[in-house]
Amino acid sequence: MQNSGSKPCSCPSLKLREVASMYFTLVAAFLVILVVALQGSAPRGSDFPYKVPLDPQGLLELSWNVSYPEQAVHFQLLIRELRFGLLFGMSDRGEFENADLAVLWSDGHNSYFGDAWSDAKGQLHMDSQQDYQLLGARRAPEGLYLLFRRAFSTCDPKDYLIEDGTVHLIYGILDTPVHSLQAINVSALHRGLQRVQLLKPNISIPELPSDMKSMEITAPDVVIPSQETTYWCYMSELPEGFPKHHIIMYEPVVTAGNEALVHHMEVFQCAAQFDSFPHYNGPCDSKMKPERLNYCRHVLAAWAMGAQAFYYPEEAGLAFGGPGSSRYLRLEIHYHNPLVFQGRRDSSGIRLYYTASLRRHDAGIMELGLVYTPVMAIPPGEEAFVLTGYCTDKCTQLALPAAGIHIFASQLHTHLAGRKVVTVLSRDGRERQVVNSDGHYSPHFQEIRMLKEVVAVFPGDELITTCTYNTEDRSRATVGGFGILEEMCVNYVHYYPQTQLELCKSAVDPGYLHRYFNLVNRFNDEEICMCPQVSVPQQFYSIPWNTFNRDVLKSLYDFAPISMHCNKSSAVRFPGEWEKQPLPSITERLPEPVPRCPPAPGPQPAAPVPLNLGRLRR
Amino acid sequence: MQNSGSKPCSCPSLKLREVASMYFTLVAAFLVILVVALQGSAPRGSDFPYKVPLDPQGLLELSWNVSYPEQAVHFQLLIRELRFGLLFGMSDRGEFENADLAVLWSDGHNSYFGDAWSDAKGQLHMDSQQDYQLLGARRAPEGLYLLFRRAFSTCDPKDYLIEDGTVHLIYGILDTPVHSLQAINVSALHRGLQRVQLLKPNISIPELPSDMKSMEITAPDVVIPSQETTYWCYMSELPEGFPKHHIIMYEPVVTAGNEALVHHMEVFQCAAQFDSFPHYNGPCDSKMKPERLNYCRHVLAAWAMGAQAFYYPEEAGLAFGGPGSSRYLRLEIHYHNPLVFQGRRDSSGIRLYYTASLRRHDAGIMELGLVYTPVMAIPPGEEAFVLTGYCTDKCTQLALPAAGIHIFASQLHTHLAGRKVVTVLSRDGRERQVVNSDGHYSPHFQEIRMLKEVVAVFPGDELITTCTYNTEDRSRATVGGFGILEEMCVNYVHYYPQTQLELCKSAVDPGYLHRYFNLVNRFNDEEICMCPQVSVPQQFYSIPWNTFNRDVLKSLYDFAPISMHCNKSSAVRFPGEWEKQPLPSITERLPEPVPRCPPAPGPQPAAPVPLNLGRLRR
Repeated sequence: MQNSGSKPCSCPSLKLREVASMYFTLVAAFLVILVVALQGSAPRGSDFPYKVPLDPQGLLELSWNVSYPEQAVHFQLLIRELRFGLLFGMSDRGEFENADLAVLWSDGHNSYFGDAWSDAKGQLHMDSQQDYQLLGARRAPEGLYLLFRRAFSTCDPKDYLIEDGTVHLIYGILDTPVHSLQAINVSALHRGLQRVQLLKPNISIPELPSDMKSMEITAPDVVIPSQETTYWCYMSELPEGFPKHHIIMYEPVVTAGNEALVHHMEVFQCAAQFDSFPHYNGPCDSKMKPERLNYCRHVLAAWAMGAQAFYYPEEAGLAFGGPGSSRYLRLEIHYHNPLVFQGRRDSSGIRLYYTASLRRHDAGIMELGLVYTPVMAIPPGEEAFVLTGYCTDKCTQLALPAAGIHIFASQLHTHLAGRKVVTVLSRDGRERQVVNSDGHYSPHFQEIRMLKEVVAVFPGDELITTCTYNTEDRSRATVGGFGILEEMCVNYVHYYPQTQLELCKSAVDPGYLHRYFNLVNRFNDEEICMCPQVSVPQQFYSIPWNTFNRDVLKSLYDFAPISMHCNKSSAVRFPGEWEKQPLPSITERLPEPVPRCPPAPGPQPAAPVPLNLGRLRR
Repeated sequence: MQNSGSKPCSCPSLKLREVASMYFTLVAAFLVILVVALQGSAPRGSDFPYKVPLDPQGLLELSWNVSYPEQAVHFQLLIRELRFGLLFGMSDRGEFENADLAVLWSDGHNSYFGDAWSDAKGQLHMDSQQDYQLLGARRAPEGLYLLFRRAFSTCDPKDYLIEDGTVHLIYGILDTPVHSLQAINVSALHRGLQRVQLLKPNISIPELPSDMKSMEITAPDVVIPSQETTYWCYMSELPEGFPKHHIIMYEPVVTAGNEALVHHMEVFQCAAQFDSFPHYNGPCDSKMKPERLNYCRHVLAAWAMGAQAFYYPEEAGLAFGGPGSSRYLRLEIHYHNPLVFQGRRDSSGIRLYYTASLRRHDAGIMELGLVYTPVMAIPPGEEAFVLTGYCTDKCTQLALPAAGIHIFASQLHTHLAGRKVVTVLSRDGRERQVVNSDGHYSPHFQEIRMLKEVVAVFPGDELITTCTYNTEDRSRATVGGFGILEEMCVNYVHYYPQTQLELCKSAVDPGYLHRYFNLVNRFNDEEICMCPQVSVPQQFYSIPWNTFNRDVLKSLYDFAPISMHCNKSSAVRFPGEWEKQPLPSITERLPEPVPRCPPAPGPQPAAPVPLNLGRLRR
């Protein structure tokens, strides 16, 4: 683990200034601040292995490391053109209200740093407990570096709790001098948000074989369209007769200067049933795009902003090439260009590292969660409606080997209403382990994440995937399905050894849903047409939503038997009876994690730290 | 507020021993223990104004005071016959599992004191954070006094959070030497529980008039029956022609030696509609008890163990005497005699203090919560089922004076399944204030409690009373009603100035309940008889309970319109339409209270404190 950001004293060229102040508190508390001026050499990149641009112009660049022993994150923020300060912080979903902020501000003569929070109206307040700890500030030719530290959990109710999964980082740039923190008008700032997985897992890099080769799947010299959102499709292919290999690692290739524009990239393998696929290099939603490209959906690699190289575990690799496998690959790049830059050229993509010395196991991908069917629906106007998909003991009993499988990575997936996703492993009715959890999930930030711990799943285990949706802005029900305004609840788990089980998902029994429509109809004295020609979505759309109909739908989903998809491929079920299956019963829940608070120094006074940055100019 | 228990230094005759130890912790934490030997004079009773015997024999006597500025309770525990130690502590409902305990133990040579907790199996563990702070120990002729302090909230997850309302105190007596805390077998101890309101409100005593008189309503020379539970009834009467007076205070009169047997007492006034009532002095459930005594239900005074004198606010008194008011009073005493003492004689009762100089306002009692009707039911097997009763804006608009009323006391009431009761005041859809709350409510401990703050209620306000029930031990539904195995959800609020509004309660609309029975019937393919001759309880009893039927009943109670009882007396409604009223809608809830943690010293080492008590003997 890199954490030398907290040990500036180990560098020989440090100048330290210790300011000990006593303020306000009755108990004598000491505020000891180290303002470290690193002279000469820039901090080594390896000190802060993770890096992401915050704004679309790349004026703010955040690097960080994670110390699990210290339960803290060390940040290095590069401000390329400092005006009169900036805000940096975290909030539930990237909003500037109820946010936890580190603020650097200047009145034109003096500069200050402090831990602040914003209230429900976005007004800033100094935090009574200072948990963004300033470790140093340094001017360099490229800009100002700020170094600071933040514990995952501070037990200060005004602070954000840094958890696994997505973190919404926010920033704001002060263009004019301000005389106090309270004087900052947050809504008037040049500001934005960036999503990252802050708590990267602490995984040691597996040994790589000497015969490892690499290939780049990159779109050649694309002119990035001058529009906010583009999904770019580029077809590539493996050499003819390319034998079976294992992909053992991949990493992003991002054209220099476009770091803030390339939002995420995926490489898909096409279906083996077609002998050939047409060439294509253009927007994925173009009418010119050949229909057949829709058969290129098997994920080989996925990367999103802030992610690093992806390593397969030493025991496994992802098979590609060889008979029964398509030579054709589709690269998809999401360009995010909110400032509508024109004429930017890009040749980004993904570099695959592979070996012919096959590893012990093929890796597999299994789909957990809900079947894509309209029977699973979310009423309109819901702040946090929960749907759950099950992979039952009966299915794992049948489909998994006695020695079990090992899940090492996971990609969560919903459409636009998704807010949280979690998969829990249950054994003998008792929840045992969280497979993957994202309490700040965003459908705009889907990456394959390495798990902190490999999860072993044995025959008879249950995998329960729960998604939380927000439909406050919708006026009719949201049903399950493929459409962008329909919903999904999926966790693609990456595991080894590969098995025949590709899909382990559920949906409510349709007969019980029919009873629900009947019941709602009678209770509300309304006529919902039960005629066979009316589709399930139409029936959901015609429900007069009120708390009763909503609550009873919840009760139905918590009670009715399920239809299981325990499938070898998306169409072929394992043999057995999969209709009207009982819901898994959970007799013991995992305890809620209790946040660990940092040990004393205890509360510090709410005073800004003066910084010597010289005089700033407009 | 009395808190001199924490300031032993102010007494001149103290001998202090300061022991400063450093243990285990990496951070240098000091464990400073004062073992105070109070010599000569016993601590003044006024230092610990509240007192209760813990065990039925009165061997353990607890006194305490409450310091709101310090957010702490100071305890003085008198152990009349110390053997080899004792356990004292608190738990959710008086169980010895998951309890928070102060333990004094001896191996026969040395004695120790420590803060401990018991796990789900009742096994004791030393707490890593010592929050029962020993302040002193003293031998006196009557026994050993232990003085210790406990903050309301410690933020240690192993500790009990001391809140308003009932606290279940537990004790256990060590009859044999033990060599360690872990060696104590809790289930083998002589042990028990006592319920008290620990956080007594800090109310200044109103000025009492010079013409104040008193009368004792006491049962003369009762032989306490040799059985665990007796409700004793005694009829008393006011002198003929007794004019209207105001009761301005009352206090318990408990026969010396019976402090541990007299559990609670109430004085009821009889109905004015009867000219006379028969004399009676005997058990309330006797067949010999005259039927007419059931018409003596208007509460004049209520006392329960641990309670002190009850004072009416300076502006108000409870009217009794005069025309239109019955001369007849019924005293009811609950004797709790678990050790089945024989032949104990008792003349306990209540002393009323009253004045002919009537105060500005008559005090009134209003009943909030649920109507006594079977339409409000609790399914069997529920751990915490919630029912809510409403006093709507429409009723308060009609019945309360423009200047509002002032609630100064409250008595919560349920039958045996009740576990929590809370009443919240809501205005314009926003919850404003908790009127009274008991999160550890016990139907065995019902007392009139003074509120910490007088609550002003204005026309248009809503009073929402929520009761939580446990029916885990029941196999059929529990319906609302008068029977001991039926349920109630009531808050008797004491207020001034008296209005005509005696009852402001609700129940679900019976038509909507009928739809529920229909719905359950159809959904479950069962036949619940809807014939008019089948009663609502019978319909509830015939429901095949499952999570769906349970959840839908909850949804019904959260959705269906209500029938309001906005009544002048139990039979006479205010004019207006009270059927099918909309449920009050709440747009803003009160925030959950965030426990305040005590300021540093920070965590202390988990080491017992040695005590010099000399050698103990069997």
